[in-house]
Amino acid sequence: MRAAVMGAGAWGTALAKVLADAGNEVTLWARRPQLADEINETHRNTDYLGDVKLPSSIRATSDAADALDGACTVLLAVPSQTLRTNLTGWMPLLGDDVTLVSLAKGIELDTLMRMSQVVIQVTGADPSRVAVVTGPNLASEIAEEQPAATVVACSDSGRAVALQRALTTKYLRPYTNSDVIGAEVGGACKNVIALACGMAAGIGLGENSIAAIITRGLAEIMRLGIALGAKPATLAGLAGVGDLVATCTSPHSRNRTFGQRLGAGESLEAAKLAAGGHVAEGVTSCQSVLALAASYDVEMPLTDAVHQVCHKGLSVPEAVALLLGRSTKPE
Amino acid sequence: MRAAVMGAGAWGTALAKVLADAGNEVTLWARRPQLADEINETHRNTDYLGDVKLPSSIRATSDAADALDGACTVLLAVPSQTLRTNLTGWMPLLGDDVTLVSLAKGIELDTLMRMSQVVIQVTGADPSRVAVVTGPNLASEIAEEQPAATVVACSDSGRAVALQRALTTKYLRPYTNSDVIGAEVGGACKNVIALACGMAAGIGLGENSIAAIITRGLAEIMRLGIALGAKPATLAGLAGVGDLVATCTSPHSRNRTFGQRLGAGESLEAAKLAAGGHVAEGVTSCQSVLALAASYDVEMPLTDAVHQVCHKGLSVPEAVALLLGRSTKPE
Repeated sequence: MRAAVMGAGAWGTALAKVLADAGNEVTLWARRPQLADEINETHRNTDYLGDVKLPSSIRATSDAADALDGACTVLLAVPSQTLRTNLTGWMPLLGDDVTLVSLAKGIELDTLMRMSQVVIQVTGADPSRVAVVTGPNLASEIAEEQPAATVVACSDSGRAVALQRALTTKYLRPYTNSDVIGAEVGGACKNVIALACGMAAGIGLGENSIAAIITRGLAEIMRLGIALGAKPATLAGLAGVGDLVATCTSPHSRNRTFGQRLGAGESLEAAKLAAGGHVAEGVTSCQSVLALAASYDVEMPLTDAVHQVCHKGLSVPEAVALLLGRSTKPE
Repeated sequence: MRAAVMGAGAWGTALAKVLADAGNEVTLWARRPQLADEINETHRNTDYLGDVKLPSSIRATSDAADALDGACTVLLAVPSQTLRTNLTGWMPLLGDDVTLVSLAKGIELDTLMRMSQVVIQVTGADPSRVAVVTGPNLASEIAEEQPAATVVACSDSGRAVALQRALTTKYLRPYTNSDVIGAEVGGACKNVIALACGMAAGIGLGENSIAAIITRGLAEIMRLGIALGAKPATLAGLAGVGDLVATCTSPHSRNRTFGQRLGAGESLEAAKLAAGGHVAEGVTSCQSVLALAASYDVEMPLTDAVHQVCHKGLSVPEAVALLLGRSTKPE
């Protein structure tokens, strides 16, 4: 299979390695020519993947037309809020029957669209040509060939199986799923719940509390997913539970660490400063997730609490009291 | 409400405290008269809960008849493999309409019965009188009043709500559920998956691998649960996901620590010695869980791998290779 990976960040580069290791012909598009040169000359992407050696068969280029030429599978590995603009530029270069694979996790801020919806709207592709790859997949660990599992979601089972084969290596085990919506919802919501876990840890709460937040977080993600048309089983799987657990419990999770600073009493500004000047993704995405939930009349009390802490001046102890003060109910 | 808690280990004592804090009249039965005396005199249970101060309204006794006299709710807090013997002895002392609440997690070794089935078989009680309390609930954290959530499962919604009220405090948030089977399956299986997580960590696998094991572990627990008649939503909730995540990710989990030693190459005997002469619970329960699964024709590849490592001499690296070598499939 001939594949183009559009975006040479950590995740795009790691998946280019997977595709090459699985025996596919891979072109990797990097926005910066210097990065493309580095990858071609040293077979490394030191900014994103440190010292990991990439297969020499990966050919990098900063020319999108060159990258996309003859590709039957195109993996979209640019940040979620830039997908629309990038894809609009690439549109004339895409073959008629290519499989378009979204790797970005998020909800578009203005439109409240999932990434696959953005792909369909921009390209006019039939939904059967659009796939999603998602799961508990830290790029650095995949690049180091640590065993992992992932989900390949596509409504067209033939394309799903072809992509599953193209991504199967001795260290990556892809599972197919026909539920694209379910595969996208978990990834879009998990960072908000990871912020909540961090906040809880920051004010000194224990493991029961963290497990309860993860589980009740999953419950509200499921409510949203079901409202959007997802299957509950998808959210109980790698794209939901798996990704959520990894993001909420990893000591390397930026969202968890950021929430922990807020829980410990730091201001948003101070936490931002400590994180190198950027807010954690959940601080932004709690807004689009909550707006999407509101438009479907879905209650998301944890996401709402995180939103109030990040944007409405509620303190973390006040948020905890609010959550525990809700009337008791069936699970 | 007048409640008797039968068993003064960590969990029985912590729930006795919850019941007392919620305003109920509580008698706590301890097997050893010295322990009952300690609780009555010092309002502490130092062996199990260290320095935690218990409500002075809790009355401890080593006389089961005294403990059960007039109780309308009886919480069974003895170890799972001793429940049958204990309950048989208490049978003549139980009131006609008491709610029998199982706190034990496990599958009875010879009969492969869940704990609520043992209660029903021994007492002849109608299933509507039998409830289960389960969830991500480390006893020590509940005793320290860390916020936590739990599940109160009973097929009779009136009893479920009464028990929910009796356990609602400012630090514990119980959710009702009508699915007793689902509430029991997660707790019975989680320790085996925690052993698998420990083994993976012990051979140096990363967070992607742990998240995949937790998620695929949940998938096989769900398959078993559904075969037994559980609702998938229960297993996606506190009794399934919640308890599993807490047990698999906690640094205090004995099963995870035990598995980690095996993964690091220690023998079962050496790991047992390091754990104070006891094998972790999952080493035993993988046998009953696997036997139960086999009798329902349910595949549980992770449980099977743990069983082969613990009882058939398979090495952990061999088990990992076996799991990754299975043919790829839909999620």
